[in-house]
Amino acid sequence: MGRKIIRRRVIRATRDGGWRPREERLAGEEPLEIRFGYTSYTTSMRTPGDDFDMVAGFLVGEGVIRQADQLVSMRYCAGTDEEGNQTFNVIEVQLGPGATPPDLAAARNVLTSSACGICGTNSIDEVRKKAGFELDSGTGIIELGTLLDLPDTLRESQQLFSSTGGVHAAGLFSATGELLILREDVGRHNAVDKVIGAALRAGMLPLHDAVLQVSGRASFELVQKAAMAGIGLLTAVSAPSSLAVDLAEEAGLTLAAFSRNHSVNIYTHAHRVIKA
Amino acid sequence: MGRKIIRRRVIRATRDGGWRPREERLAGEEPLEIRFGYTSYTTSMRTPGDDFDMVAGFLVGEGVIRQADQLVSMRYCAGTDEEGNQTFNVIEVQLGPGATPPDLAAARNVLTSSACGICGTNSIDEVRKKAGFELDSGTGIIELGTLLDLPDTLRESQQLFSSTGGVHAAGLFSATGELLILREDVGRHNAVDKVIGAALRAGMLPLHDAVLQVSGRASFELVQKAAMAGIGLLTAVSAPSSLAVDLAEEAGLTLAAFSRNHSVNIYTHAHRVIKA
Repeated sequence: MGRKIIRRRVIRATRDGGWRPREERLAGEEPLEIRFGYTSYTTSMRTPGDDFDMVAGFLVGEGVIRQADQLVSMRYCAGTDEEGNQTFNVIEVQLGPGATPPDLAAARNVLTSSACGICGTNSIDEVRKKAGFELDSGTGIIELGTLLDLPDTLRESQQLFSSTGGVHAAGLFSATGELLILREDVGRHNAVDKVIGAALRAGMLPLHDAVLQVSGRASFELVQKAAMAGIGLLTAVSAPSSLAVDLAEEAGLTLAAFSRNHSVNIYTHAHRVIKA
Repeated sequence: MGRKIIRRRVIRATRDGGWRPREERLAGEEPLEIRFGYTSYTTSMRTPGDDFDMVAGFLVGEGVIRQADQLVSMRYCAGTDEEGNQTFNVIEVQLGPGATPPDLAAARNVLTSSACGICGTNSIDEVRKKAGFELDSGTGIIELGTLLDLPDTLRESQQLFSSTGGVHAAGLFSATGELLILREDVGRHNAVDKVIGAALRAGMLPLHDAVLQVSGRASFELVQKAAMAGIGLLTAVSAPSSLAVDLAEEAGLTLAAFSRNHSVNIYTHAHRVIKA
């Protein structure tokens, strides 16, 4: 579809007086709407591509599905833009037995449970209640040296980033450091949704022995998504937020961050990392 | 409240075999719920602090308000966590004459307008329809050298980032490069909402002659928020997305990105930048 990379004219201005027009490649970004029975559930801005993975992964994160056969079909809803081109920006989902259909009335208000006094604790309860998988207590799933190598492997494999410099990546790795699934997107959550959805569709959930490496920060929502997919270890290149650490602690997930080749900080459940 | 910076124990593991526990500072992250008449409108994860600014700025971005007197009151809804502490995570809003009350039934589905075939064009139409201010066609609001200095000024002023390394910043600057308002948050949108809300509450909207510098990427949503506040120039340290460029072009806003001290890319309406 050629919408992952968009060419645009730009003026490159430099301090020494340069003012030159040139062409540049940007990461594509378009809205994707998810519908159930022709009723809108949510709309997210995402980089086009791997849309079915993204929808599947998003639904895992919301507790709607936890295995591939709970998803009967996903199809693009016919739609055209002003020039009459197919837009591929609306996906109609049909759920199967065992799925937990979302409350469309409360769509996108996942955290709004909504007693006065909602706080991190409520949110964590919500996640624990909905999580499809128990995280097992397995120890020693990855060696420290292997863990430290993941950011470089991820970066070297990022095709879209190399072109545009404007996208996040998420990579699912085996315990021996093999890259299993890589997805890129302008939105960090989308990259994670796409990885988890691809894993679900390949019948790989729960991902107890896998490691999810993300290119940016570790937010609460990324820990939530990882926990819902049963991922044992989430590791980030940049900082975690305080609530991300709290949720990882509660959910039994190993959270590592500031992973920078020579060192990494392990915030929770360090037993899954084998010391150097 | 002391919830902006949270201390946590962490293991610092190094490739040479180091495995040392230490204490680290993390950026705080908690949900903030906005309500109208005790009905929930939206919940966002944010770094506590400047909450009223954030709510006011968010409502500008949604087209609900465009001047301070359209906001009669904002108050924390009494709520407590499990230990009985006040949580300060729910804000009740009362609108005044001239405000456009949000459609609570369609809460958080801003982009879902929802003809089959929603696409960037529809979203842009939506923004143009709701924008409270026309962007004037003023030229030459900032000199290139001044523009190139903004990222360093922003970075040097970031107190929370210095402590935690985990937050985004948005800074509103005058045409002469003076920092007027700075806000930091784990979420890039929140930092922008906080800046715009503070400006609104200070009676500064529309911000035609101001420059908004952000620490990360320029996404569609940031351009949308800037346009809704009448900001003439948005500049980012990292990459823009394609839809951010399209919206800036349509909305008449100057969008600069990859601003790295010696050079910057100007994507749209370059006439607001005075050549070196």
